[in-house]
Amino acid sequence: MRTIKLTLEYDGTAYCGWQRQVNGLSIQQVLEEALERILCEKVSVIASGRTDAGVHALSQVASFRTHSALAADKIFLGANSVLPPDIVVKSAADAQPHFNALKDARGKVYVYRIQNTRLRPVLGRMYVWHVRYPLSLDCMRGAVSHLLGEHDFSCFCATGCDIQDRVRTIGAIAIDERSGGLLEITVESGGFLRHMVRNIVGTLVDVGRGKISPEDLPEMLASRDRTKAGTAAPACGLFLKEVKY
Amino acid sequence: MRTIKLTLEYDGTAYCGWQRQVNGLSIQQVLEEALERILCEKVSVIASGRTDAGVHALSQVASFRTHSALAADKIFLGANSVLPPDIVVKSAADAQPHFNALKDARGKVYVYRIQNTRLRPVLGRMYVWHVRYPLSLDCMRGAVSHLLGEHDFSCFCATGCDIQDRVRTIGAIAIDERSGGLLEITVESGGFLRHMVRNIVGTLVDVGRGKISPEDLPEMLASRDRTKAGTAAPACGLFLKEVKY
Repeated sequence: MRTIKLTLEYDGTAYCGWQRQVNGLSIQQVLEEALERILCEKVSVIASGRTDAGVHALSQVASFRTHSALAADKIFLGANSVLPPDIVVKSAADAQPHFNALKDARGKVYVYRIQNTRLRPVLGRMYVWHVRYPLSLDCMRGAVSHLLGEHDFSCFCATGCDIQDRVRTIGAIAIDERSGGLLEITVESGGFLRHMVRNIVGTLVDVGRGKISPEDLPEMLASRDRTKAGTAAPACGLFLKEVKY
Repeated sequence: MRTIKLTLEYDGTAYCGWQRQVNGLSIQQVLEEALERILCEKVSVIASGRTDAGVHALSQVASFRTHSALAADKIFLGANSVLPPDIVVKSAADAQPHFNALKDARGKVYVYRIQNTRLRPVLGRMYVWHVRYPLSLDCMRGAVSHLLGEHDFSCFCATGCDIQDRVRTIGAIAIDERSGGLLEITVESGGFLRHMVRNIVGTLVDVGRGKISPEDLPEMLASRDRTKAGTAAPACGLFLKEVKY
């Protein structure tokens, strides 16, 4: 058996997320069906992690095992010829036999894009969260300083999540202003909880609007209570940018 | 009767173009229906020019006459509250009574976006033409020099077009490299023929690929024969950027 490592870009707009679902089309299903068509065998693909419905990936990593002798560059070309326009394989390569895209992932970088303009965006509207209220970047950056490092991030974890250990370490958060009122919030961590980036971004926007003070963040974290933090930012603004191994 | 001048941004992906059609949904129809809802009277909107099916606008200009006394800023807010996510009114203002967005237009600027990468684009794929072949910008710029100024542009005019006078003046063409393999071709003219920008861009890409020599352009123009120029670039890469009055 060989192990193949793929990097993928996808537009999550039309999908129920990475993971196979009974009631919706997933990126995993479409990718597995594409690989099965070109490899002529059943394929199970493992990603570095699930992305939610509507979340995009600039560079998701996935792995699978195969009996096929088809060269990796042929897998690359073949998969891209049968994948739909909203999913593309950026690279395919033979990996160490025991490589596992999920278990071996050491960290991830997500980017969240906010269009901070009075007028709603039209071109590219599926790739941003439109926030029409003025935002104070100084306040948002003040709040960010409380999130860096190791904390129990329970207050930013999706309700109903059954993971017990909710201590994570955020290595970096950057808020960058781009042209045309675009803000990019980049968050880097060894591991994320479910909805963690979207809940942090929603809270940062509440801080930027003045609804939450930056100084409230330590208490919010200490509460470990999801209801104490802001609402989740919508999926469409979120991009998995990089997976580190 | 008042005359209102609108500027509009739209994503042309889902539309049969600006102009009303029997067999498809047009931007004109959607805009007129939105205005009729908020003004409670029949409205006829005139644009600076038609855009083809799938062509986008960063800033289209349109005008209409109305008996309504509704303030322009209320028209702006009202129209945007009923327009779909892929059309937005960027501004609305009272204009001179005889202002006509079509007849008074003195010039236009179009931008054409090419994604010149080996891999097909996924995120934002509806806003670019993907050209996978390497392109020589030097050759393309050499060809451009022959297009500047006043020429009979028959060879770049859609077949079946019944306009007799096909002499136009191109004031400027710029080819700019953006990050990530994106090329932007900006074309400015007092007037354009049907499909003129797309036919010019298609020809420039043939020049960039080496299929046509830059030195063939004078003969191509002189032929006044559509079959002597390159194929049309697809609609999705074209944006109406500015209308001058």
